[in-house]
Amino acid sequence: MNTKTRRQDPMLAQSRRLQVLDAASDCFRRRGYHGAGMAEISKTAGMSPGHIYNYFDSKDAIIDAIIERDMEEMFSVFNGFLQAEGPLLDVMLDGCEDGVDKHLDIEKAALKLEMISEAARNDKVALSLQATDVEARRLMKQLLRRDGSLVCDLPDVELDSRVSVMFALFGGLMIRRVLNPQLDRDTVLIALKPVIRTLLTPF
Amino acid sequence: MNTKTRRQDPMLAQSRRLQVLDAASDCFRRRGYHGAGMAEISKTAGMSPGHIYNYFDSKDAIIDAIIERDMEEMFSVFNGFLQAEGPLLDVMLDGCEDGVDKHLDIEKAALKLEMISEAARNDKVALSLQATDVEARRLMKQLLRRDGSLVCDLPDVELDSRVSVMFALFGGLMIRRVLNPQLDRDTVLIALKPVIRTLLTPF
Repeated sequence: MNTKTRRQDPMLAQSRRLQVLDAASDCFRRRGYHGAGMAEISKTAGMSPGHIYNYFDSKDAIIDAIIERDMEEMFSVFNGFLQAEGPLLDVMLDGCEDGVDKHLDIEKAALKLEMISEAARNDKVALSLQATDVEARRLMKQLLRRDGSLVCDLPDVELDSRVSVMFALFGGLMIRRVLNPQLDRDTVLIALKPVIRTLLTPF
Repeated sequence: MNTKTRRQDPMLAQSRRLQVLDAASDCFRRRGYHGAGMAEISKTAGMSPGHIYNYFDSKDAIIDAIIERDMEEMFSVFNGFLQAEGPLLDVMLDGCEDGVDKHLDIEKAALKLEMISEAARNDKVALSLQATDVEARRLMKQLLRRDGSLVCDLPDVELDSRVSVMFALFGGLMIRRVLNPQLDRDTVLIALKPVIRTLLTPF
């Protein structure tokens, strides 16, 4: 992957890598991807720049690792849904609250929005995020096709649309959080749950 | 407002102001708000920096004017809805296609996402965007309360939720456009229209 290998206790190396990712996330959020230099990231991480280069070749390698970490988190959520028993609609309605909380988290939202903005002008970041999105849509469609889903027999284009609208909705909550800081999850859930019901039921 | 006044043909002054806003929009999109300097904006606009300062004091004044122009465009859309005859549901379903097209426009999306990212770390930009959002939510609620709306009698918190979810959905389409460039409006509309129907009907 995007990391250099070196002889070191693997647990310690992993913990140092995470330390760099957390520091870089913080810097990207506060200063923007372009505004945050390796010097500031190393200062925030409490490590020397040389030390950071043992783990990551460049800022691009760091953002790739942040995207990868994000993707792993998302995959574990999808896998939870795939393995949950009972009708998909119930499983997803139960999962809504967590999903809303995650997308209304201001620190996560600010970092994700910064990465998406950067993707609009940086092809490398765009390709990484788009590859993750392909995989997320694939998993979501797999979920809609599973036993216990009311929409499992619908044509592909209908499922593509439902997935896109669902992702737009949750992604858009990150924007809501910035533009309407008073918005709380309970208010969102009143209308969000009926919308999820619509998306998981034949029209 | 944020512009200097000077003795000049008002039509010409207005046209010069728009020329600066277009150039600045382009620069903010390509380089990010922080990355774009007044020198680059003036070069893109084909005007000297001194000439630009006749119209705008600072980059902040330019972004305020961009937000204001955005707001005027949005208000004209809302006013169109407010004045349209017939049941609100039909009016809004008819308006969906335009709304999807606008939010899937990559240039507009990239600029808006950059401003929202910037808002997450820049209080002045945040305050301007949030003030616009307050007004947009007020107008949308006014629309949901008008004659011919099926949800006109619902409690305030229900309308707040419906407005927030609707805004999240359209805002999120800008993110979709960046993460899934192949997404087309017809695919989006398949599931988007039933969702709008849900949001404009009592649950």
